[in-house]
Order: sequence, then C-alpha cells, then structure tokens
Amino acid sequence: MPKYQVDLKDIQFNLFDVLKVQRLQQFGMGENDYKGILEEYNKFVENEVFPSREPSDMEGVKLVNGKVKVAECLHPLQKAFYENGWFALGFSEDIGGTPVPEALYTACMSLATGANCAWMMYPGLSRAALNVIRLKGSDFMKAHIIPPMVSGAWGGTMCLTEPGAGSDVGALKSTAKPLANGKYAIKGTKIFISSGESDLYQNNIHLVLARTPAGAEGTKGISLFVVPRFKINDDGSVGGDNNVQCSKIEHKMGIHASATCELQFGQTGETEGWLIGDEFEGMSTMFIMMNEARLYCGIQGESQANLAYLLADNYVRERAQFGKELIQHPDIRRNLLRMRAMSRGMRAICMYTADLFDKVHETGDHKYEGLIGLMTPICKAYCSEQGFQVAVESLQAHGGYGYCTEYGIEQFVRDIKIATIYEGTNGIQAIDFVMRKILKDGGKAISALSAEMVASVGSLNEATFKKEKDLFGKVLMSAQSTMQFISGLAQKNQFNIVLQHCTDFLQFASQMVVAWRLMESAKIAKQKLAGASGEEKEYLESKIVDFKVYCAHYLVHNLSIAKTITEFSDDVMALEL
Amino acid sequence: MPKYQVDLKDIQFNLFDVLKVQRLQQFGMGENDYKGILEEYNKFVENEVFPSREPSDMEGVKLVNGKVKVAECLHPLQKAFYENGWFALGFSEDIGGTPVPEALYTACMSLATGANCAWMMYPGLSRAALNVIRLKGSDFMKAHIIPPMVSGAWGGTMCLTEPGAGSDVGALKSTAKPLANGKYAIKGTKIFISSGESDLYQNNIHLVLARTPAGAEGTKGISLFVVPRFKINDDGSVGGDNNVQCSKIEHKMGIHASATCELQFGQTGETEGWLIGDEFEGMSTMFIMMNEARLYCGIQGESQANLAYLLADNYVRERAQFGKELIQHPDIRRNLLRMRAMSRGMRAICMYTADLFDKVHETGDHKYEGLIGLMTPICKAYCSEQGFQVAVESLQAHGGYGYCTEYGIEQFVRDIKIATIYEGTNGIQAIDFVMRKILKDGGKAISALSAEMVASVGSLNEATFKKEKDLFGKVLMSAQSTMQFISGLAQKNQFNIVLQHCTDFLQFASQMVVAWRLMESAKIAKQKLAGASGEEKEYLESKIVDFKVYCAHYLVHNLSIAKTITEFSDDVMALEL
Repeated sequence: MPKYQVDLKDIQFNLFDVLKVQRLQQFGMGENDYKGILEEYNKFVENEVFPSREPSDMEGVKLVNGKVKVAECLHPLQKAFYENGWFALGFSEDIGGTPVPEALYTACMSLATGANCAWMMYPGLSRAALNVIRLKGSDFMKAHIIPPMVSGAWGGTMCLTEPGAGSDVGALKSTAKPLANGKYAIKGTKIFISSGESDLYQNNIHLVLARTPAGAEGTKGISLFVVPRFKINDDGSVGGDNNVQCSKIEHKMGIHASATCELQFGQTGETEGWLIGDEFEGMSTMFIMMNEARLYCGIQGESQANLAYLLADNYVRERAQFGKELIQHPDIRRNLLRMRAMSRGMRAICMYTADLFDKVHETGDHKYEGLIGLMTPICKAYCSEQGFQVAVESLQAHGGYGYCTEYGIEQFVRDIKIATIYEGTNGIQAIDFVMRKILKDGGKAISALSAEMVASVGSLNEATFKKEKDLFGKVLMSAQSTMQFISGLAQKNQFNIVLQHCTDFLQFASQMVVAWRLMESAKIAKQKLAGASGEEKEYLESKIVDFKVYCAHYLVHNLSIAKTITEFSDDVMALEL
Repeated sequence: MPKYQVDLKDIQFNLFDVLKVQRLQQFGMGENDYKGILEEYNKFVENEVFPSREPSDMEGVKLVNGKVKVAECLHPLQKAFYENGWFALGFSEDIGGTPVPEALYTACMSLATGANCAWMMYPGLSRAALNVIRLKGSDFMKAHIIPPMVSGAWGGTMCLTEPGAGSDVGALKSTAKPLANGKYAIKGTKIFISSGESDLYQNNIHLVLARTPAGAEGTKGISLFVVPRFKINDDGSVGGDNNVQCSKIEHKMGIHASATCELQFGQTGETEGWLIGDEFEGMSTMFIMMNEARLYCGIQGESQANLAYLLADNYVRERAQFGKELIQHPDIRRNLLRMRAMSRGMRAICMYTADLFDKVHETGDHKYEGLIGLMTPICKAYCSEQGFQVAVESLQAHGGYGYCTEYGIEQFVRDIKIATIYEGTNGIQAIDFVMRKILKDGGKAISALSAEMVASVGSLNEATFKKEKDLFGKVLMSAQSTMQFISGLAQKNQFNIVLQHCTDFLQFASQMVVAWRLMESAKIAKQKLAGASGEEKEYLESKIVDFKVYCAHYLVHNLSIAKTITEFSDDVMALEL
C-alpha cells in the first residue's frame, strides 16, 4: 500500500482564494475554522479511510443466507465516521448537523471518496435519501426515520433500475397498491441497487419508484415510496420483516466493497411503503436525489483522479530509470503535468458547482439554478470520463507495478469506471445537457455562462497568457457557431443529428468550463505571485502551469471537436452499420 | 457468457482484396485454401478458445509449493491447439510447420488472442522464443530444443525485467559466469516474466539477459542465454532440476490466466545456460523476439477490440430502451460506428504490417524493412492504447451489465491494459519511433511512407470523399511542418523538447496510417460496389463508412495534435511540477 497523499493547498486555494467561501456569514465560522475542519477531516481520511481501501476491495461483499456481509475493516470505519460527526457535516442544525459552506463539505467528502470510493457509497446514498425525506417527508418520517439515519443506525438507498428499465426508467414494472392503512403494498424487482443491503446498518430505507393502479405508462405515472427493510412501529422502533429480500449481489469490475444488490419487494409476503411527494410526481421527487447522485459521480471521478495523480507524482519522484528519476524524463513529466492540470481542473469545476448552491441562497438569483442545471451533466460526465483517464495514466506511470495490485493503482481504474454508467449513463447526460439544459432552456443558462467566460478571457493578461488568450478566444467563437449549428438542426426538426452530436458538444462545453476555472485560478495566482516565496511561490507558479498545460493539451482539441460537429455531420442513422 | 462473434468478411477483404496475399506463390496454396484455413482456425477459436476465456479469468493461476498451476480448462485447450497443428501454423516446413502468408497467420492468431488473450500468451511466447533459437541457436538446440517446443511439450519465455531494471534494461544485475563445460552459470532475479512457469509445459526454455564478467555497464555488456527450467541431457532427454525457481506470482488487474512470475536463477544451486548469439550482442538477439512481441501487443489490442466491438454490436441490436433497440438511438449508433472504424482500422494496419514481412522476401527491397521498423511502434502503441479505449466503449455500450462480470466485457478492459505497458511502455515506443525510426533514420522510411500516402490521397475520388480528401490533404501538410519542427529542435540539440512531443507525434502518425489503410479499403470497396448486392453490398458500404467515420472522429484531431506540438512547445522540464 502506498503512502496517502493530499493536496490541501490546492483545496484551500479553491475555497478561500477562488470561491471565497469565507464571505458566507450564515455559518458563524471563519477561514481558520474551515481550515481546521478540512484538516481534521483529512486526518480521519488518512488514518481511517485510506487504509481500508485495498483490504475492502480484496475482501469484497458476500451474500450469506440472504444477508449481505461487507468487508470486516469497514465496520470500525463506519462507526468512527458517524461517531466523529463526519456524516452530519453539511446538514442543517435542526436534524443535528453541522452546516458549512457547500464547497467545504464537497471538498471533505471528496477526500473520503478518493480514499475509499466503494465504502463512501454507503453513507453517500444514505445522505441522498435523507435529503429527500428532509424535503418531502411526512412528520412521522421526520420524527422517526431521520434521527436513526443521522446517527448511522439506519441507511438509505435509491431503487430505480429494473431488468428491462435502465436508462428508460419509465418502462419500470414495479407496482404500488393502496392499502387500507394509507400505506401501499410494493411489489417488484429492482436491480443494480447500491448499498441495497448490508450489515453496516440495522435497517435500510429504500426510496422506490413504482406505479400506482392509476399511474399512466411511462415516467408520468410513476410515484416514489419510502420502503423500510424492516417495518417501523408507530413509536419509531424497528418492527418485523418488511419482505425486502436481496436475491443476488453482482460481481463487478470494481467497487468490490460496495454491495450492488438485486432486491425483491413483496415476493415473500407484503412489503409496505409510504408515498413520498405527490402521486405521479415520483420522477421529480427522485430527481432531488438523482441530481445529488450525479454530482457525486463527478466527485467520484475527480477525487480518485486527484489521489491517483498524487500517487503517480510520488512514484515518479522515487523511481529511477536510465540514471535519473522518472520525473526527469520529458515524456513522463509531460504526462504528470497533464494529469495534474486535468485533476485540478476537475476539482475546480466540482467545487465551483458546489458553491453555486450557496450562491442560490445568498442571492436568490435564478441564474445560479440554471448554472447548477448546466454544471450537473458536465461534472457527472466529464469528471467520470476524465477521472477514469487520469487513473489509467497513473497506472501507466507506475509501469508494470501499476498493473499489479500491490500499489492499489489499478483499483482506481476499476472503481472509477462505474461512474460513467450509473445515475444516467454519460450518453444520457449529454442528451440532458443539449436537449434540456440548452435547447429547452432557450439557451438562457448557457448564454449567461458564455458571457461570463467572454468577460473573463477579455481581462486575461496578454503578456503572460498570449497563446492561451488567442486559443480561448477562438474556442469561444467556435462555441457560438457550433451552438448555432445545433440550434439550426433543432429548428429544422433534425433531432437525430442533434442527438448524435450531444456527446461531442458536452465534451466541448466541459473543456471550455474547466479551462475557464483554471484560468480564474491562474489569474489569482499571478496576482499573488508578487509577494510569494518558497513553497507558496512554487504552488502559485504551478497554477499558472496548470492553465497553460490544459490549454495546450485539452482545450486545443475543442477546435477539432467543433469540426466533427459542424463539418462532418452526416446523419448516423443513414450510415450502414 | 455471450455468443462468440467474428467478422470473417472483413478479414478476408483485407487478405484478398487489399493485401492480395494470393499473389504469393511460395506457399503452393490459393485463395480457397487460405479461406479454408481461416475458417477451420475460427471454428477452433469459437468452440475451444472462447469458452475458456471467462472461466480461466475467474480461476486465475496458483502457486503451490513452488509450482504454478493454471486454470483447469486450459489443459485440454492447450493440448488440442498443438495437436490440431495450430501452433505450427506459419512456421517453415523444416521444423514441422505449415508456412502460410504472414498476414493469414496474423489473422488466425488474432482470432485466438481476441478470444482468450491470457492463454494465448503461453504459445505466443513459446513461438517468439522458438524463433530466436531457430535463427541464432546451435545445432544442439535445433536438434533437441526446437522439436519439443514445436510439439508443445516444452514452452518458452523471455526474461528481461529485474526489480531495478524495467524500461532501463541496461541496468540489469543478473550475471553469467563461464563454466568449464562451455556453458554459463546464471544468477539473478527476473520479475514480471509471463508464462515464467506453468503446468502446461514439462520444461520451459528461458531466454535470459545477463552480464558476463567482461560485460561493460549498460546495454552494451549484455548477452543472451538459453536457460532451461530442467537440464537437458546430451541425448535431448529432460535431466535434473536446473534451479530456476518461481518465487512469486503477481496479482494483476487482468490476464489472470497468464502466470506472471518472479524467477530466481541460481539461488538454490547452479543454473546452467548456453550463450545464444554473440557475447555482448544480447540486446540485438533479444530484439528478434522483442519486435515480434511488440507487434503481438498490437494484435492483443486489435483482436480484443474487434471482439469487444462485435459483442457490443450484438448487444445493442437486442437490448431495447425507450421503445426501440439501442442501435436505433443516434448517440449509441455513433459510438458503434466509431468503435467499428477504429477496430477495423487497427486490423488493417496490423495485417498490412504482417504482409510487409512477405514483401521483404518477395522483393528484397530494404524499403520494406524500414516500413516494418516504423510500423512496429505504431502497431504496438496505437493498437494497445486504442484497443483499450474500444473495450471501454464496449463496456459503456453494455451499461450496468458491462460493468458486471457476466457478459465478460469488463475483462477486455482489464486484459488489454497490460499491452500498453509490457514489451516497452508506449512512452518508450514513442521515443523509439521519433528518435530512432525517424531522426536516426534520417527520415528515409517516413518519407517513403508519406510519398505513398500523398499519392494515395491524390487519387481519391472527389465526388464520394470530398471532405475526407480535403482533411487528409491538410493533415499531410501538417505532418510535414510538424516533422520539420521536430527536426529543427533536434538540430538545435533541444532533445528534451523533442522527447516531450514523441507521444503526441506517434499518435499523429498512427492516425494518419490508419486513415490511409481505411482509405485504401474504401477505394476498393467503392470499385466493387457497382456489381454488388445484398450482404456483400452492405459490407462494402460499411467500408466506405468506416473511412468517413474515422476521418470525422479521429483523423480530424491530428490538426489539434499538431498545434499542441508546434504552437504550445514550452519545455516541460522548465515547468513547475
């Protein structure tokens, strides 16, 4: 097992220099308090989370007599995580939480995710489920379900997928029949349910999509239900079996420590659940959770990439070949520079997006909601995709050792891959981005974002960033013409052609946004460089390098991606396949 | 386990329409004979090799009391492979082989590799070792080592890597001390030795790099030795233990069925070996094997990508979401078109390169040796890199099922990855390509290749391929200016900057070559289309589509890769990391 690595300087730079979260007054804390939380959380990650990463991957999960057993080492970790209050970080005080700026919470949670992504899915999904109940739950749920979820006695899941209904959620067959007691009898099979069952929790609160008798076909007829693994008595105590059975756990490429379950509802007896949110509003209620889960996929890519990059950085400084350390070889150094620019770029957009949530409350400006909508598929798809690629590059930098299990690098490759698939495949994200977040929105949000970028590039220092300014200027013009091209197709109802370009355009937009956020960092670093020395100076210079390397190796490809979209636009449906 | 898929039509098109291997008279066979061999080989792959792929991955290899046990299912497979004469395919008649055109042999071996890459490494490495002995071995070796290697009783390996000597082979510490009997006592530790030990063979013939007492430091002082696992008596019978111990087997991301061994020579007693080739000529003798192994890495990427693509193609035609098969969704169809263009493009360059070996003998023209030199790093690096990416895209097309083990798709991702690392990492390939195959060569081979491409593009039909012709023309011009830029750096002794561009330039050149080979196919397909109908017509149209899609999605990026090299060329050694 390699030594844990962290780049706290870069996280702090994002928090305090770029996003300036210390501006937020409502938390009653200042920069030093936030730094203290970050450092404490990081200690926990280093000492408790990271050491569990490889053993829990090796041990995996087991299904024994219908019960799921997780790796032994996860039990004390889970206990300590809840007891130390880390699960409560970021929740409001009324449910026992410690409210902090969203970007700080995200930075902390990213550290834990990077250090053991598969384990972090248990509390991660509980958190997402808890948020739905907090916003849409009944008084009974708030009184009797939220407290044990906050304490860590109970967990939570989201149950959407069925054998015939993956991306196409509306095709689901699970049913919910009203009972005399106001509850519903839930029946059906759900697959690929993360944390669907485990011995980490005494009870599991499943949020289940199902169709009531009056529910129309497709997504419009779907409602959401709160379905406990064990019944909950009127006084909140745990009651009898609610007939939710784990019939199978999946064997997967990675996230071996996470139990991916096939769950049977109402097969061995009646399974009771409560409606949450309005009937037929299941999709929109579920989307509270889904959007959180999508951003979390982005964090899974970003966080593991950052750790994989740092481990590679450490390795190439120690390993010598041809009489010098690997880092002294230009080809290797180029690769490391690329990995750092990409990893920090992903961090920058994830933390920027987190901060938008605070901006919504701070300003009441709907603009920020539009930006969150745009940034969600960008973070989800780009960070999962590129996080995977960084992990692959880290493996490559480790050579044969990277392919072997002992450094734990190949595990990043295996673990990150799932993030491009679940919570809506990256293809679905691209379609969401173009069809809903841009075309259906009438281009409002993307225009606002573009205007910010244009202004930003305009004020970029010519002397230091001449080539980058030229390139970014070209990319912005190309963005406009590409967007017009796509809108033109939509106006002519050529939606097949629009749809075939979504993945390319999402990549184009993502790279523009990453470059923009790295540019903002580089500008600030440039300003601060004047009075800096030693490590601080080196760090600030590295931020300028990140932006330049990202432009030279990633943003530059936007020019050819735009060509693919606008110049090679034959309808793929007409091509022989 | 999914149903085995194969694209025999495309292999035959490459063999008989593009490369025209039926021109070669020396094998005494015609097109129908070759087709028969291909079909028989393919049946064997379908019925015997493919079914072993997933079980042998699951079972892996075990080290029990110093003996390596492979998966049970590999024993009958291995036996049948040798007994049916498939190992002997492509060898000359004097050692009991069945000589065939190199491209046909490559096509066959590619099918077996795609269907179980990890197993195929056992006979694959034996073949490479056998070739060295055939070319450089003593009469004793030819009489007593080659026959049992051809029959499958004995296997072979190549032993280069040591803990401190990976890419830097010259740093190795293994020693060879002359003995009174003319042999050498070999001592040292070798790591990452594929097929280093197994119960598939009764004896293993290790080709070991070591330093004799007079050997200088670095690669110049290295010699190559033939070191049997068990001693060989003067009459060729197997003698006593030669003290080659497997001290460890590696736990790896993939190729679980292949035993990756740490081998100890001369630790438990004397290990005897014979010098093969001249003293101090170990590197060049080993390179006979190494070049074969490098091309084989390309085949590992190409073959598995082609199978992974076909399985995805099959899946998206069966799986329906949103009321229609996945293949009817433009985003998915785009991905499949990209995968096919890339997979078939890789096949085209691997088979083209194989045919160059026959061209060398056919014409005696040294030009073809230069082309083989150029194509070796292209096939090795590009096909391993892009083969991996196609496998990743196949996984993605399978959604959640692709991430689970039951379809066997994630195994492609895990298995292909090693090909970017072993036999010289892709970074080493890129340096070899630019520094040796282009600069040291004075640009001879690359100029000859470019001239062919220029002529080829010149005669491309304007009406059908206007956009592609324009693009390829631009890329060729850009190739020239980029090459001049790199030569200019070399002339100014700015080798650090040259070295940082090698990976990008190798990708640039690879994509040009793939596009060229797909273009040649498209031209032929266009000609044949006139009289075609039904499936034949569909296939020929698909070849035109392959070229167009490759241009639109891959070749187009050459324009931005060239920008990265020529416009963003800051010396990475001066950048803060």
